[in-house]
Amino acid sequence: MSTSTAALAPADARARFRDGLSTPTSGWCAGWTQANLIAVPREYAWDVLLFAQRNPAPCPVLDVLSDGAVSGPLLAGDVRTDLPGYRVYRDGELAERPSDVTGYWRDDLVSFLIGCSFTFEDALLAAGVPVRHIEKGTNVPMYRTTRPCRDAGRMSGPLVVSMRPVPAELVDTAVSVTARYPAVHGAPVHLGDPGLLGITDLDRPDYGDPVPVADGEVPVFWACGVTPQAAVLASRLPFAITHEPGMMLITDSRDTDHRI
Amino acid sequence: MSTSTAALAPADARARFRDGLSTPTSGWCAGWTQANLIAVPREYAWDVLLFAQRNPAPCPVLDVLSDGAVSGPLLAGDVRTDLPGYRVYRDGELAERPSDVTGYWRDDLVSFLIGCSFTFEDALLAAGVPVRHIEKGTNVPMYRTTRPCRDAGRMSGPLVVSMRPVPAELVDTAVSVTARYPAVHGAPVHLGDPGLLGITDLDRPDYGDPVPVADGEVPVFWACGVTPQAAVLASRLPFAITHEPGMMLITDSRDTDHRI
Repeated sequence: MSTSTAALAPADARARFRDGLSTPTSGWCAGWTQANLIAVPREYAWDVLLFAQRNPAPCPVLDVLSDGAVSGPLLAGDVRTDLPGYRVYRDGELAERPSDVTGYWRDDLVSFLIGCSFTFEDALLAAGVPVRHIEKGTNVPMYRTTRPCRDAGRMSGPLVVSMRPVPAELVDTAVSVTARYPAVHGAPVHLGDPGLLGITDLDRPDYGDPVPVADGEVPVFWACGVTPQAAVLASRLPFAITHEPGMMLITDSRDTDHRI
Repeated sequence: MSTSTAALAPADARARFRDGLSTPTSGWCAGWTQANLIAVPREYAWDVLLFAQRNPAPCPVLDVLSDGAVSGPLLAGDVRTDLPGYRVYRDGELAERPSDVTGYWRDDLVSFLIGCSFTFEDALLAAGVPVRHIEKGTNVPMYRTTRPCRDAGRMSGPLVVSMRPVPAELVDTAVSVTARYPAVHGAPVHLGDPGLLGITDLDRPDYGDPVPVADGEVPVFWACGVTPQAAVLASRLPFAITHEPGMMLITDSRDTDHRI
């Protein structure tokens, strides 16, 4: 399963999701860039873009689709149907989790495609750094932290991070490999004690699935593109459509396009 | 002169400009980040920010100051007074070139601070790559090219580049040094034949001063933060305030903050 989905072309993966498959996309389409999605009405788009610009570690913008556009230079597909899962937020609450958002779409939506750390996981594996949630076939664990993002207009909220346990002797490799990918979150924002980020229990992630941290391993935290979703909640934005955390848009852009 | 201005602190340089000194800032305040300025009314700010996001090589956004703000996290000074020179554009025409824009300021202006290649010149010099316009004490030559930027709403226009002649055997050094600074234009966009960018005469730059290209040197072109000014003209934006090309905002942010 892991091998075959890793070898899929992005268009083939998107077709499977369009046909109804719902699954985390970590490990899928090795070498191709994955992206977070957040679509908001035009009147909130400035605040979202400014929030992203002011918080580039969690919110590296890969592209922006204006005026209800559903495809663009980074993908030939359709952002309304080609992801494995979606969330619809209304008045700052999670309202629905549909598998297709065609019926929710509006002509005034502006879609932000935001870099995802799944993009550098293939490079981690190539460098000999294990990726636990790929080994286990589960979703990456993600946590809301107590570290605030920089505000932008009505958008504010906490930094969200993803976590991967890394053997202590490979932490420097994990840092140097991912530092070359600033457009997909780059180097870790924190290593070690989860408490310093306000995370009280690694076994209870806010999004995704927990993974075991073995003896001799260090929990390593990267900024996460779910951060705008946490801001949608914290800011009580009237309407937003996002991906389901861990179920990403797989683009036609290569990982190496985002490497320094 | 060159040595003393290179050793100045940003606040001291800004004080000199506030007191009326008008001069290109290349070589000033070694180790401190310089920035392009473009301020537009709020109603055009979305198009400008999207234009910047879609054209990150010429328009790397370092910060955005909203609602008429004149200072921010990157600088303790005042963007209305602390640059050596300004341009005021009205209806897509260059209207005035004042030394202070306090009298032109509006509460609805949004100021974009955009990375400047002067920021990596200190790193080039440290790597043994000569910088001709610093040697000569002149402004860097800048050229409008025939390469279009990606449009964003009403903002469109050509890529503008800066040019530095580099000895052929040091071109690889110049590329690798500057590639580490993507937030201040990064690696060159072109090397060699100016004609491929639609530049017909290196001795007649569109902004700044010409510099000689010696035998054995290659003209090397970097994306330039004057690009938004060319878009203001091409797009006939009703109002914009910018820096005078080559006369930059010197920030309190270190060059190394923008290095990968």
